[in-house]
Amino acid sequence: MNNRYKDKQHVVIVGGGFGGMYAAKSLARANVQVTLIDRRNFHLFQPLLYQVATGGLSPGDIAYPLRTIFNHDDNIQVIHAEVIDIDPLQKKVILRDGEVAYDTLILATGSTDHYYGNAHWAEKAPSLKSVEDALDIRRRIFLAFEAAERTIDENERRAWLDFVVVGAGPTGVELSGAIAELAHRTLRKDFKNIDTASANIYLIEGLDRVLPTYPKSLSVKTKRELEKRGVQIKTGTLVTNIQDGMVSMKSGEQRDIITTNTVLWAAGVKASDMGKIVERRIGIATDKSGRIPVTEYLQLPTHPDIYVIGDLALVKDKHGNPLVGLGAVAMQQGRYVGRSIKKHVQGKHVSQYRFHDRGKMAFIGLNSAVVDIGPLHFNGFFGWLFWLFVHIYFLIGFDNKILVMTQWAWNYFTHKRGARLITGKDPFPVLLMSTNSAKALQTQIDNSKNNIREFEHENSS
Amino acid sequence: MNNRYKDKQHVVIVGGGFGGMYAAKSLARANVQVTLIDRRNFHLFQPLLYQVATGGLSPGDIAYPLRTIFNHDDNIQVIHAEVIDIDPLQKKVILRDGEVAYDTLILATGSTDHYYGNAHWAEKAPSLKSVEDALDIRRRIFLAFEAAERTIDENERRAWLDFVVVGAGPTGVELSGAIAELAHRTLRKDFKNIDTASANIYLIEGLDRVLPTYPKSLSVKTKRELEKRGVQIKTGTLVTNIQDGMVSMKSGEQRDIITTNTVLWAAGVKASDMGKIVERRIGIATDKSGRIPVTEYLQLPTHPDIYVIGDLALVKDKHGNPLVGLGAVAMQQGRYVGRSIKKHVQGKHVSQYRFHDRGKMAFIGLNSAVVDIGPLHFNGFFGWLFWLFVHIYFLIGFDNKILVMTQWAWNYFTHKRGARLITGKDPFPVLLMSTNSAKALQTQIDNSKNNIREFEHENSS
Repeated sequence: MNNRYKDKQHVVIVGGGFGGMYAAKSLARANVQVTLIDRRNFHLFQPLLYQVATGGLSPGDIAYPLRTIFNHDDNIQVIHAEVIDIDPLQKKVILRDGEVAYDTLILATGSTDHYYGNAHWAEKAPSLKSVEDALDIRRRIFLAFEAAERTIDENERRAWLDFVVVGAGPTGVELSGAIAELAHRTLRKDFKNIDTASANIYLIEGLDRVLPTYPKSLSVKTKRELEKRGVQIKTGTLVTNIQDGMVSMKSGEQRDIITTNTVLWAAGVKASDMGKIVERRIGIATDKSGRIPVTEYLQLPTHPDIYVIGDLALVKDKHGNPLVGLGAVAMQQGRYVGRSIKKHVQGKHVSQYRFHDRGKMAFIGLNSAVVDIGPLHFNGFFGWLFWLFVHIYFLIGFDNKILVMTQWAWNYFTHKRGARLITGKDPFPVLLMSTNSAKALQTQIDNSKNNIREFEHENSS
Repeated sequence: MNNRYKDKQHVVIVGGGFGGMYAAKSLARANVQVTLIDRRNFHLFQPLLYQVATGGLSPGDIAYPLRTIFNHDDNIQVIHAEVIDIDPLQKKVILRDGEVAYDTLILATGSTDHYYGNAHWAEKAPSLKSVEDALDIRRRIFLAFEAAERTIDENERRAWLDFVVVGAGPTGVELSGAIAELAHRTLRKDFKNIDTASANIYLIEGLDRVLPTYPKSLSVKTKRELEKRGVQIKTGTLVTNIQDGMVSMKSGEQRDIITTNTVLWAAGVKASDMGKIVERRIGIATDKSGRIPVTEYLQLPTHPDIYVIGDLALVKDKHGNPLVGLGAVAMQQGRYVGRSIKKHVQGKHVSQYRFHDRGKMAFIGLNSAVVDIGPLHFNGFFGWLFWLFVHIYFLIGFDNKILVMTQWAWNYFTHKRGARLITGKDPFPVLLMSTNSAKALQTQIDNSKNNIREFEHENSS
């Protein structure tokens, strides 16, 4: 055992998201042995997950098998397993069904949703982190329109046609923009009893503007674009409760209630449970978002053999502000750590990590996106083209690039969305909540027939 | 009420598969009011469902929203609801949450899986009827390869690498061919501890040949093609039991067991529960497959206001043999009934239904399909091109046509499959069944490192 140093170093990466995948990519064909562990068998292009949730793309279009990404790299092994603990003394990662020893460990387990102490809201207001979440949200959105078409109770119909998105970060902006597009364009001709354009889409934000982490000028433009598309924005508004069919909120001293059957949660994320594991095992306190503070080399201060990157890491920029959890940040850090390890192995000097701000983007809807790249802030059609280009560029898999482009082109020219499936074990759970709508349907069909009947009856009697 | 005949006739169609959808299409803009009721909000192109189950296509590629299909037809209303009963006296369809009155009723609820009195096998050997089924089968197939990669127990690995498909009709042939292609081509480079090509794919058939409803010459060619691709065919073999990890079967007097963790059921279908409802409500006995016998006009003998079409109907050809349950048959019958109703309304003569045999096809794998069209029987590459053309032609939605063609081209040139996602609530249920694999992983990684270590240790000691 004392000749371990003579072996090829074994680098274990936990998590195949942007951070872990780019770390592994940087280590491809390097003089180390790499094991990449993920709970899922695919890398997910999270920035487009909201398009799955709104019926624009299929999960398969934005996911790519991790094994296929690394199938030509002999020094990289992919393991489909769940990590439940780490043992920094024995240098082991504990799986649900086994364990893996490491020489160097890269933790890149990302983030999960954050309900700020109201975990019970999760069932009523799902968030958007996984493929399953996206399909659940898709089911809720399209079932809501179906239920609105069925009921004749005006209050009930309003509750089905009103949508609340909590949190106006990029995900909240993109979700509300996409739902507005569905209601105002895509679905309008498909429903014959309701005008889907009468839907209200509310975007609720606790801070004083949308996209609070973006430059102010972009927030102003985004607000204007969203409102033009029919999204109703309530900034400076905190959600105080979410119950069946109802969201309570307050803005200053003023309290308000929206009756709605569809609430989506985009109000924040926290680091994954790995943060707590590191806290317990190594005694490093995580911050209030569960992130692990790291050194300028993205290592744990007491354990230079453990790197932490992406949403799980607390890294500060040159102004002392924590970097926000974005795919671009995780990618950069993954690449940096991969290269650092290679330099170590080669006995070269490793320089400190420095964040390069490549900018931020958010998609608002057809023909409009806001882009903020260093000194460049632009929006509208040009922003939209740029947004398309960047997303296609970073999407993994040539087939996925083609599939996504095809569907975007289709959506652009027809305003249709092809992946509007309501799937799941029982496609009617929500409809059954609605008691008033029972038997209402017959009345509705009779009504439309009576128009003719009454006329003819008058004439015949 | 007695002036109902003065109204536009109300035609209610139950089921939006091939039969119901084509019936509604035929009635578009006719002088009748149409209500199409389906449990799902989409029409599913069932013939390609096996490609979803094997990771080649996404569900969204082969599904199309029913509302969008009929959004320009003002006389057609789509209702997303579940029919639980019919009332032929009051001429009503009973929904789970309401009811709809009809003047004319078209029952097109299709078929469901048939376990011939062994319904408890369903959990162990899922069948392929719905999108959810396809995703479940996809999960099982790809998890099996992951589990095989993980274990070091040779018996266990065999059980994960052996696949049993029960039933050699078109679905069984296509499923087994696709799994063989996965094992022998697609996945080979992706797995580093196992040779996926060592997988055994068994196709079990009770009758004496594969594709028993096809001409004998095509069965012979199909068998040859499947065997060339590595499928092991056992005809004249009946499955006697399915348990965890094991399939028991007998062939004549000889009994046999295959240890496997993956069994897929393609051994037969029966008519949907609507058959039993009609039997109870109207007193017409269904046949042993649950089908409802109909007149030469596809009506119930005692109730000419009720049509039954597709897999639910027992219709005989000119030789007295029941028509088999194929999309093409349902399509023809849907069109026939739609036209019949139009002729009735116009007071024109309605002729009897006559089945036009347009042929049968089955896809075996890349570059090979068998086609049987009247006097034409061909297979191989030409059959394959023909198969591709016909499926693209009948697929609903121009975007879906493009998406499917893109993915087939991709698959053709790279042998890759883009939709290999393992999704579902817990992506590890199957892996946990395997107790031997715990801790086995470490040994495996150690082994590969020890090759280097031992060498170096010898040299240093």
